[in-house]
Amino acid sequence: MSDKKKKPQKLKARLPRGFGDRSAADIRATEEMVAKIKAVYENYGFDPVETPMFEYTDALGKFLPDSDRPNEGVFSLQDDDDQWMSLRYDLTAPLARHVAENFNDIQLPYRTYRNGYVFRNEKPGPGRFRQFMQFDADVVGAPGVQTDAEMCMMMADTMEALGIARGDYVIRVNNRKVLDGVLEAIGLGGDENAAQRLTVLRAIDKLDKFGVEGVMLLLQDGRKDESGDFTKGAGLSERQASFVVKVLTNEHAVDGTEELEFNSVAKQTEGFVSGFDELDTIRKIVRSSGYEENRIKIDPSVVRGLEYYTGPVYEAELTFDVTNEKGEKVVFGSVGGGGRYDGLVSRFMGQPVPATGFSIGVSRLMTALKNLGKLGASEVIEPVLVTVMDGDAEAMGRYQKMTQELRREGIRAEMYQGNWKKFGNQLKYADRRGCPIAIIQGGDERAAGTVQIKDLIEGKRLSGEIEDNAEWREARVAQKTVAEGDLVAEVRAMLAAQAEDRQRGA
Amino acid sequence: MSDKKKKPQKLKARLPRGFGDRSAADIRATEEMVAKIKAVYENYGFDPVETPMFEYTDALGKFLPDSDRPNEGVFSLQDDDDQWMSLRYDLTAPLARHVAENFNDIQLPYRTYRNGYVFRNEKPGPGRFRQFMQFDADVVGAPGVQTDAEMCMMMADTMEALGIARGDYVIRVNNRKVLDGVLEAIGLGGDENAAQRLTVLRAIDKLDKFGVEGVMLLLQDGRKDESGDFTKGAGLSERQASFVVKVLTNEHAVDGTEELEFNSVAKQTEGFVSGFDELDTIRKIVRSSGYEENRIKIDPSVVRGLEYYTGPVYEAELTFDVTNEKGEKVVFGSVGGGGRYDGLVSRFMGQPVPATGFSIGVSRLMTALKNLGKLGASEVIEPVLVTVMDGDAEAMGRYQKMTQELRREGIRAEMYQGNWKKFGNQLKYADRRGCPIAIIQGGDERAAGTVQIKDLIEGKRLSGEIEDNAEWREARVAQKTVAEGDLVAEVRAMLAAQAEDRQRGA
Repeated sequence: MSDKKKKPQKLKARLPRGFGDRSAADIRATEEMVAKIKAVYENYGFDPVETPMFEYTDALGKFLPDSDRPNEGVFSLQDDDDQWMSLRYDLTAPLARHVAENFNDIQLPYRTYRNGYVFRNEKPGPGRFRQFMQFDADVVGAPGVQTDAEMCMMMADTMEALGIARGDYVIRVNNRKVLDGVLEAIGLGGDENAAQRLTVLRAIDKLDKFGVEGVMLLLQDGRKDESGDFTKGAGLSERQASFVVKVLTNEHAVDGTEELEFNSVAKQTEGFVSGFDELDTIRKIVRSSGYEENRIKIDPSVVRGLEYYTGPVYEAELTFDVTNEKGEKVVFGSVGGGGRYDGLVSRFMGQPVPATGFSIGVSRLMTALKNLGKLGASEVIEPVLVTVMDGDAEAMGRYQKMTQELRREGIRAEMYQGNWKKFGNQLKYADRRGCPIAIIQGGDERAAGTVQIKDLIEGKRLSGEIEDNAEWREARVAQKTVAEGDLVAEVRAMLAAQAEDRQRGA
Repeated sequence: MSDKKKKPQKLKARLPRGFGDRSAADIRATEEMVAKIKAVYENYGFDPVETPMFEYTDALGKFLPDSDRPNEGVFSLQDDDDQWMSLRYDLTAPLARHVAENFNDIQLPYRTYRNGYVFRNEKPGPGRFRQFMQFDADVVGAPGVQTDAEMCMMMADTMEALGIARGDYVIRVNNRKVLDGVLEAIGLGGDENAAQRLTVLRAIDKLDKFGVEGVMLLLQDGRKDESGDFTKGAGLSERQASFVVKVLTNEHAVDGTEELEFNSVAKQTEGFVSGFDELDTIRKIVRSSGYEENRIKIDPSVVRGLEYYTGPVYEAELTFDVTNEKGEKVVFGSVGGGGRYDGLVSRFMGQPVPATGFSIGVSRLMTALKNLGKLGASEVIEPVLVTVMDGDAEAMGRYQKMTQELRREGIRAEMYQGNWKKFGNQLKYADRRGCPIAIIQGGDERAAGTVQIKDLIEGKRLSGEIEDNAEWREARVAQKTVAEGDLVAEVRAMLAAQAEDRQRGA
């Protein structure tokens, strides 16, 4: 083994920033979650569809929030034929391309869901990755807000299917037209005010975080936080700012339960009025279907960052407290959302194709479910380990045969595949891996046609660490010798006894 | 609707070459297949792990077959910090990086599986995509060929778990050392002969396709095919070529059932001898475990294209005939394979880390299963359609409430979300979508507290097409009027009757 000494020039094993590997526990938890979400969407009559990771850059468009420069935020490269292609940054733009490309073959309204990875070429941070999973549902070719209402109900049902209790989540609904109308009413309509509108929208988005007082400051001159950092405001007058806040904080304004004093003001703009009507229709539909305000709530302060929304926007918010990295208790917040994007498919079509849909941030939702203890309940039993006492081909064949017999009966099992000569390493492996049972057959047992079955769970409970073969054989804790022919039945019985113990313990 | 006339400058809806969208049927079939494969791997004691799509380019290495120029075959781009990153072209190189990066936390032998997309920046062709799915299993830290033997058995079990009958597949096993030994024996050792060795290996790889005679030509001066195209040969002498063919076509050479005359020749090289011994051990282990030659077969003609293999190589071949695009009957061929790659992890480590594993080509395997009629057996029932006769918010609320009542009882259902005013479109939608049942409630039914339930499957059988509302109401085929309160029970009963019909029909 003198080869071990030779050190060739080493390559560094590392990942680019913002990318990560995923563990077995994480993968299994995601699969469990995704299966539950799918079951809800299927129940609502949605079918899966999938698009590839790449699209032509021009087909994706530039709809990412906070990215003003072209190509910012996406991973792009040039194909052989010099055309630019990009990795998808969401699952909505590719769906729009898919529908437009297959328009004659698709039966509208087209109800689909899809989950998959999306990519953002952004500065990574803690918990902020450049590759992450989204789970989307959309209806294309659905002009009415009854579809937006259905989306909100589906989000609410999804939260409950995942085990999130009623009261721990709320689906908040607004309408981009209401926001636009409010901004137009205070004189911020038109392209020339786009930048200021964005600053106003960002200020509104902070209502949860800073309250009315903080947002009033952000809408006017600006706000200084506890650390003394100053955020420049949107430059509205006090009159403008208080109008904005008044509309956005009075949910009854649009919930219809109060016909409010400021309706007369709001009716200054056509957008506001039709947005208001649409929200009222959504409210009526979800209430008739039995979804009360504790599940779906009209909330004029919902913004949603993407530029392509044209009507209702909605957001799934988890309302329970979690402790953030600074040790403060904060509301968990949004785990997904969406809205109506009537213009996105028609970019390709030259005819209007109304659509609405939402996206769930899978890893963020998983973090939430972990906080609630709602994941990983389904236990995975580690394999039974068949140890190796002799390494010639015949012996290996015998050990492997035992292993296969166990597997054939549905018992998860493996033969030790490392260097068998150090028996202690085999036991250490079984211990670290969490194997429930080890099977041992040395020369004596083989001659006698028997095999030893060691209960590692019980053994761990009864004794301390057992380092080597000799000590092991003396200890004989939680271990029995059985006839070779009884191996499978005895292992099955021992696993059943362990399962019963866990049940009692739980 | 005069907006429809305005055609803005249109963007073209299309995908870059070599990428495709996937249909609901395809996605569901893949999920079914992947679940069955996972069950086998889990039973064998493997756990999932996942790496991201991107790796640093240098970490991936250059191991793609047929790509001699650097960076050929992969999609690469430069990160902000000017480092080159690439999309993974397989799932093995990223696993090697993962193990090396987390070496101190990983318990060896490390038994993992993973499925996911890989990318090849190659010229796409029919059935040849630039993004496709692989499903891999690997054991890292396993020095002995007992692990390669286990891999072969796992591949065989996977084929049967997918419904491929014994006799319709075979796992073929060879050893790269045997191939290397053969090449060394005929004087093709050393770096200076690398190109010629590759040509020889490619010729051997054609044994299935062209037979001994064809391969003899390819090994010597070259071969002219039926169309007259000439493929230049590897330039061996007749003596060299027939030695190569003799070794590669006599399975008993390494199957141990004949101690062959040419063993004396073969023993010219150390590699051949140890490769021979390893194959013999694999043979003994799999036979003891009950895997006969009709499932796992030692076959010296197996090549496998990747450069990084260092020992046993193995391949899952489907042996039944299919008709190719030219209308010829051909053996379906390989659906996956792998081998031992003892050098891949150690590129990062400066110490040897033995490993072996294999990869299944998911879409290729799916094509095979479709040919065998082994996919899509689990039927998906399309949603019950609740039609819309009136579009105000109250009416929408009532229809949506019915829909939700069905869903709550686990019945897949949807309310029509298109323009409700053309009732005929709703029925056409139900027809094209394959909805089993339509629910109708007009003003009369509503006044009477009833609802109509239409059996669309039975209706289609009984009548021709029904175009409009009036005709529909007269026909009343396979349709019943029930009390609103009985809706769910009646729908459930009708779906059960349809399921029974299907059963009888099957």
